[in-house]
This record gives sequence, C-alpha cells and structure tokens, in this order.
Amino acid sequence: MQEFRTIGPTPYLCPLPVVLLGCARPGETPNLVTVAWTGVVCSKPPMLSVSLRKSRLSHGILRDTGEFTVNLVSRELCRATDFCGVRSGREVDKFAALGLTPLPAPGLQTAPAVAQAPAFLSCRVRQTLELGSHDLFLAEIVQVSVGDGFFREDGSIDEAAMDLVGYVHGQYRALGGRVGFFGYSVASPEALLRRGM
Amino acid sequence: MQEFRTIGPTPYLCPLPVVLLGCARPGETPNLVTVAWTGVVCSKPPMLSVSLRKSRLSHGILRDTGEFTVNLVSRELCRATDFCGVRSGREVDKFAALGLTPLPAPGLQTAPAVAQAPAFLSCRVRQTLELGSHDLFLAEIVQVSVGDGFFREDGSIDEAAMDLVGYVHGQYRALGGRVGFFGYSVASPEALLRRGM
Repeated sequence: MQEFRTIGPTPYLCPLPVVLLGCARPGETPNLVTVAWTGVVCSKPPMLSVSLRKSRLSHGILRDTGEFTVNLVSRELCRATDFCGVRSGREVDKFAALGLTPLPAPGLQTAPAVAQAPAFLSCRVRQTLELGSHDLFLAEIVQVSVGDGFFREDGSIDEAAMDLVGYVHGQYRALGGRVGFFGYSVASPEALLRRGM
Repeated sequence: MQEFRTIGPTPYLCPLPVVLLGCARPGETPNLVTVAWTGVVCSKPPMLSVSLRKSRLSHGILRDTGEFTVNLVSRELCRATDFCGVRSGREVDKFAALGLTPLPAPGLQTAPAVAQAPAFLSCRVRQTLELGSHDLFLAEIVQVSVGDGFFREDGSIDEAAMDLVGYVHGQYRALGGRVGFFGYSVASPEALLRRGM
C-alpha cells in the first residue's frame, strides 16, 4: 500500500485550465490576463468562475464593465499566455506586443476576444465574492465561438486538433492521447468499437 | 484570418480537471463521485470549488458533513473514475465494486481519501451557492497528501510521474509533455538552460 506525506494546505488541484482572459473599458486599450484559477460551476445556465487578485488591472475592468472573454490556449499561444501572466497591462499593450488581434465577441459590448485562439467564450459577470487573496467572479457563458477549421464535415468539433495546453503546478503541459470517453467504463462492446476503443 | 462559428451558450471551458470526490456520513458506507466542474478559486486561504446537482447522493453528504476529499486521477484510475461518474452510490458501494481502499484524510472527520490516488486534498465547505442545475460548494483546502513515491530526493514533487488525466468535452485525455514553465516567456537564457528548455 502506498504511503502519503502531507505537504500542508495549498491549491494542489491539477490539471487546471489555463486561459487568456480578455477585457476592456469603452474607448480604452483592451487588456489580456492569464488565468488558471478558473472552472465550470454550472451547466444550466452555463457558468464559469474566474478568480483575480484585486491588484490586477483586469480586476477593475471586470468590476466596471461586467464582461470578459475566455480564450482557450493552444500550444502556439502558450508563450503569449505566459507573457500575459507575468506582465501588467499598466506597462504594456499586450495585444500589440504579442501581435495578437482583438476581435469583437458575440453577446458582449467591449471585451475583446483573441482572433488567434482556437475558441473563446463570451462571459457576463453575475456575482462577485471576496474570498481572501482573490475575488471570485461568477459569470454566465452567453456565447461560444469556435474556429471554423475545427469543425468536422458532420458539424462536430475536433478538440484534439486544437492542440490545447493545461496547467500543472507551474508547468504548461500539452494534452496527449485519449484514455477514454464519458461512459466508457460501462459501454457495450459495440459502443466501444464505434467510438474507436 | 481565422473565421469563427458560434455554437450557443455551453460550458466549453477546457481542459478541465477530473477528480474523484470522496465523502461519507459517520457510520455509513463512504461514497465516491466524479467531478469535472471543479477549480481553484483562491490562493490564501487555499480554496477550490466543486459543483454538484442536488439529485446527487454526495450533494446531501456534503451538505450534512461539510467535508470531502478531492483525489487526483491517474491514467490507472481513469476507468474507475468514469464508473463513479455514471453509477450512483445509492445502487452500488463504489469503493468495494472498484477494489479501491478508503483511507482517513488528515484534517477531516469522516470523508475518505482513495489510497490508490497519486495525491489528495482534504477540503472543508465554507459556503454554498445555488446557481441553477448545480449548487456551488466553496471549500477550504485544509491539507494536501502526496504519494510517497512521487517525491524526488530533494523533496520536490514529480507531477509528471503521476500520469494525470484531464477532461475535454466528454473525453479523458492524458497529459503530455511540458510546453513551458511559469515565467518562461521572459526568462533569461541561463534560467531556461537550468530548467532544461
């Protein structure tokens, strides 16, 4: 039997998503910030959470505008994503510095999407909670946009082709092969065969 | 420039964590439930969120006991994890059915950890919010336990050796190679070399 060692209380959940959050006040330079403290919190209505420190430039923009985009991160976007996590929008125009293109987000007024992202979610803040180091923004996902090239002929989406990156304790890790699909542990031999397992 | 197609509002965030949540009422059979609607919400205090439907057996247990474990999922645990997401503890003793071993969790009274997990978090519920289909449990991480075999000689932890699995729209996906580390986009050549990049 495996033995365990305690390492103290620390946010050791993994893997985590890592995303580029886009936001902007009307008429101002749009900003990007990297977020790994994010997750799905509800299916109906579809909602996600995003946690930000009060000191972050984007924190005030979310508070003032109540909207943001969540842009999924491909391997190609990983370096830009890291940059957006270590530099502040107070010092640098991140879209310009990284050669990224802001795009209007369906369902939102001002928050820009990243045209180079494989997909992005348009989000509206519904509630904010102060938890400690971070404030928790609970937001409804009002629209989802997926790059045209990721649709198969039958209209389904090929997420493997997005070459997505996750976050594991300070490291950006590529996603590898499929281990299974939801329900595979109880699926019939026919279903397993149909799904290529 | 890439074109986008909208697919409607849906919780399209990915990759997501997928974990085994352990819980138990005093003197009753412990239960396990699979959760992908989870994420870190605060660093200090360390907190995570878990969302569950009210209809879930574990929902009532969390409400009554205020505690649970979050067990990380390795490739080896993936099939058991899928099973715990499609079967109810009302019908089956999941620990027994899957040959998993419940383990006392440091800092908790009743919620069991999974002895076969590479690592687990002991969590205490601080707040619950009704969002719609799911209730959101905000919990403090009071302790983290990591399998003895994942520590390097210098005391650091080798997360790559845990062979963790993430969740991408109905598929369990293995984690692949490192793409970068936090700060690599602005690191010096010496730092990159030291970190093996």
